[in-house]
Amino acid sequence: MDPRPIGVFDSGVGGLTVLKELVKVLPAEDFIYLGDTARYPYGSQSREVVARLAREITSYLVECGVKAVVVACNTATASAMPQLAQEFAVPVMGVIDAGVKRAVAASRIGAIGVIGTYVTMASGAYQQALWRSGAKQVWARACPLFVPLVEEGLVSGEMARLAVAHHLGQREPVDALILGCTHYPLLKGAIGEFLGPQVTLIDSAESVAALAPEELRLDPAPRREGRVQLQVTGEDRQFRAMLDLIGGIGGPVERVRIERLQEAYARRARQG
Amino acid sequence: MDPRPIGVFDSGVGGLTVLKELVKVLPAEDFIYLGDTARYPYGSQSREVVARLAREITSYLVECGVKAVVVACNTATASAMPQLAQEFAVPVMGVIDAGVKRAVAASRIGAIGVIGTYVTMASGAYQQALWRSGAKQVWARACPLFVPLVEEGLVSGEMARLAVAHHLGQREPVDALILGCTHYPLLKGAIGEFLGPQVTLIDSAESVAALAPEELRLDPAPRREGRVQLQVTGEDRQFRAMLDLIGGIGGPVERVRIERLQEAYARRARQG
Repeated sequence: MDPRPIGVFDSGVGGLTVLKELVKVLPAEDFIYLGDTARYPYGSQSREVVARLAREITSYLVECGVKAVVVACNTATASAMPQLAQEFAVPVMGVIDAGVKRAVAASRIGAIGVIGTYVTMASGAYQQALWRSGAKQVWARACPLFVPLVEEGLVSGEMARLAVAHHLGQREPVDALILGCTHYPLLKGAIGEFLGPQVTLIDSAESVAALAPEELRLDPAPRREGRVQLQVTGEDRQFRAMLDLIGGIGGPVERVRIERLQEAYARRARQG
Repeated sequence: MDPRPIGVFDSGVGGLTVLKELVKVLPAEDFIYLGDTARYPYGSQSREVVARLAREITSYLVECGVKAVVVACNTATASAMPQLAQEFAVPVMGVIDAGVKRAVAASRIGAIGVIGTYVTMASGAYQQALWRSGAKQVWARACPLFVPLVEEGLVSGEMARLAVAHHLGQREPVDALILGCTHYPLLKGAIGEFLGPQVTLIDSAESVAALAPEELRLDPAPRREGRVQLQVTGEDRQFRAMLDLIGGIGGPVERVRIERLQEAYARRARQG
């Protein structure tokens, strides 16, 4: 087994749901998670800016010695993939293709829904990937209430129930629904209860974790307990709250200066 | 009466609540409202970037021939005032001072609350202005569920009630509460019902409108019906939805290229 860690990054805290699933599937691996909280949310930046931020972070993680990178952020995946995977020597995977692959496999009728933020839905990245992968019908919906609900810790109870009914009450008849935002897996209980067992929920975090061993070309690992390093570029209040909410991952949260990321990118650019 | 229009701007749609109150108080005046929807939300940009955007828009509005400017955006006010007022020859007023003045006047016990987005609360602009204006206690709270509720049109009903109880359920004993986000006046009914008549709600939109004639040095106007020009830099879907929600303002929505704003700013900078 290659002892180097796997790098995982997100614009903020949502990608921690992806990290949690990766740790479950790959308990012997070491991970470095970078939450770019100083520049959160990516959703309001242009595609070019987000692609640049993703390059900066990937350059930094590669300098940290990672053997592979997981883009645990829907906006960054939509903006920077597949170019990012082509530019770096280490394997790089994003959240979108993983979710789409699982959704297409899970759907019996080929009618697939996807929900996410306005920016991710407006990018059309999921919709395009679904059509290319053989979906026969695609239904997309932005669910702007879900992120603040999760960030306020309101993942069950009456408000979650009402928000789910509001956003998903009127929908096309789909039999698979991609949770296309890394915050949404925390609302899976409320969403599943509302949609019933006839709709398979595709959790991007689980999908990435399931496909990671193959896509990141990982060797089988011996029985050991891997370490997780947590890093943020900005404030860590919401980051710690999210760790509490998802459970299972802990430890110190280190602060990394944005300049460190930018310098790694500049060095890489100079080397050509 | 000076026949030139009054310029009003916001990062997006929230400032339309301010425009509506201005039109009520100053029905004979003409207005140009610019919603910078292409670069929405300002909340995630740095203070320097927002100050620059505010300068670009003010330069543009001045080139359009306005006689005064209202910054109908809490983030822009927090980032660009009072410098903006000093740099331009026309009177410029923001939303923060207006709300603070009214709150201090309304509070009998000097214990004042303010609610807004994370970014506005974290800037400390309201809190500082309140302390400077003689408040004895200041309670501040970010209410991240309120903006998506308003943008989804869920301003009354069970979800609004639950969100208000969640955000305002635990608070210091204040007798005046500033609604420090231009979206929040639309939730005034639900907030007022929850807090009861002992807490005076200070609506920034109403506060700005009440102080505008004096602060913008307006002459008394003859009896005529003013015109409102609506402009956006980016998409107008949410803009039109907000117009429907607040009612009373309508008409065509014109698209202005961002370059137009940037050129106005560059011309101004060249003239020194």
